[in-house]
Amino acid sequence: MTGAGTDHSKAPGRGGPAIVLVRPQLAVNVGMAARAMANFGLDDLRLVAPKNGWPRTGEYKDVAEAAASGALHVLDGARVFATIEEAVADLTAVYATTARERGQGKPVLSPETAMAAWAAPIRSGERRGILFGPERTGLGNDEVTLADAVVTFPVDPAHGSLNLAQAVLLMGYEWRRQSGDAALPFAEPELSRPASREALLSFFAYVEGELTAAGFFRPDGKQPVMRRNLRNIFHRIGMSEQDVKTLRGAVVRLVQGPRRRTPEGG
Amino acid sequence: MTGAGTDHSKAPGRGGPAIVLVRPQLAVNVGMAARAMANFGLDDLRLVAPKNGWPRTGEYKDVAEAAASGALHVLDGARVFATIEEAVADLTAVYATTARERGQGKPVLSPETAMAAWAAPIRSGERRGILFGPERTGLGNDEVTLADAVVTFPVDPAHGSLNLAQAVLLMGYEWRRQSGDAALPFAEPELSRPASREALLSFFAYVEGELTAAGFFRPDGKQPVMRRNLRNIFHRIGMSEQDVKTLRGAVVRLVQGPRRRTPEGG
Repeated sequence: MTGAGTDHSKAPGRGGPAIVLVRPQLAVNVGMAARAMANFGLDDLRLVAPKNGWPRTGEYKDVAEAAASGALHVLDGARVFATIEEAVADLTAVYATTARERGQGKPVLSPETAMAAWAAPIRSGERRGILFGPERTGLGNDEVTLADAVVTFPVDPAHGSLNLAQAVLLMGYEWRRQSGDAALPFAEPELSRPASREALLSFFAYVEGELTAAGFFRPDGKQPVMRRNLRNIFHRIGMSEQDVKTLRGAVVRLVQGPRRRTPEGG
Repeated sequence: MTGAGTDHSKAPGRGGPAIVLVRPQLAVNVGMAARAMANFGLDDLRLVAPKNGWPRTGEYKDVAEAAASGALHVLDGARVFATIEEAVADLTAVYATTARERGQGKPVLSPETAMAAWAAPIRSGERRGILFGPERTGLGNDEVTLADAVVTFPVDPAHGSLNLAQAVLLMGYEWRRQSGDAALPFAEPELSRPASREALLSFFAYVEGELTAAGFFRPDGKQPVMRRNLRNIFHRIGMSEQDVKTLRGAVVRLVQGPRRRTPEGG
């Protein structure tokens, strides 16, 4: 355990909640938790009495870094504390994640409710943090007592079994959603350029002319309703200029048959 | 590859979307995806051309089952298909998860929007499914073409790196939220029994009497505001009958000092 446990001056964190892993057992889970955090912009990782300490060298480091994938900045910034009390000393609110009821009379929140409640305070500069217990046992009751509320996940009670990094992932996801920063990394591309009504009506006229010539609209009395259905099908596509050209070209080929082969090709 | 690829008659699924893993490479990821699914009540797992096939024996089975934790029913019900086309044949809509833009002009949805759009159709009996690509490469462009829309995750673009099971977990989580079945596995316990106003006022009177006797309310003119502040602090607790007894007992001890020891103890 390092003696620097109470130095909060170098705290990373761009405003999201601190992720406090209490007595994590496996290096791979510390790494995967870091990876989960980085996905949602969290970078304040705190480890309380990790099993085997927190070696920044050797196999432990290799395993953690491999599991962290691109989230080395989170691992590198991780701080180690001897006790939860030290780890949360600079925080103004603490939630404890737990999979089972603790009978402590604390509020029980969903990830969504929990992170919605924290969005404004954290935006205004408060530091808050979430406790996650060891892999096999979860937090002890005395550890849960340190929290203002417990957070649990809306899992199927018959098959609820989230691992440590999955629990961190869901809290990070909800933080990002509730903090109003949940833009997708890319958006629906602009349609090349919507087809003008003129181009669309010209396409309809062409297709319907060819279909009439081919005897598609039978029996005669049915033509109006058949034409309407067909136009509505094409309307649902929301065609671009390019789409109209593509479809028109396809119909032309169907009507005219194969292009004559070039001499070389024939 | 089994020849039973198109047999959908034994389809599991209690209504949630099918999870279609396309060419998954590692047994551990198939197992962890199953575990992620089970948490949120999903049980229709489909594997398209898994690397090394899908051996239900040997090391592959051991690794997958260990990773699945309690979700063996999902693994056991998993079906293998040779192609995506066979895997989605019975579905009426397909979304493809992807981390990058594909330039295909398809709608781009968040997990939330995607699952919100599917809640009503699936409830009314439609079968729908979500494609997830292989670990390293994601879905190919021709594979994305098979989908009605793409789904991507609201990750930090600088550090977005979800693994296969994490992507499945987030879709499962949103399915459960959007399908209106996101009850928490346990709720806030009932307060033992809220304290009556009479018990509360009696407690205040006792405490304030002792504090007056102890000379706490100084200077004299300050007593009203000090008393109001103190009452408001206690009101914020929302005390139960038991809480009032506990606090009253604590104050009694502070006033009277240690209990006289019994002869045996002394």
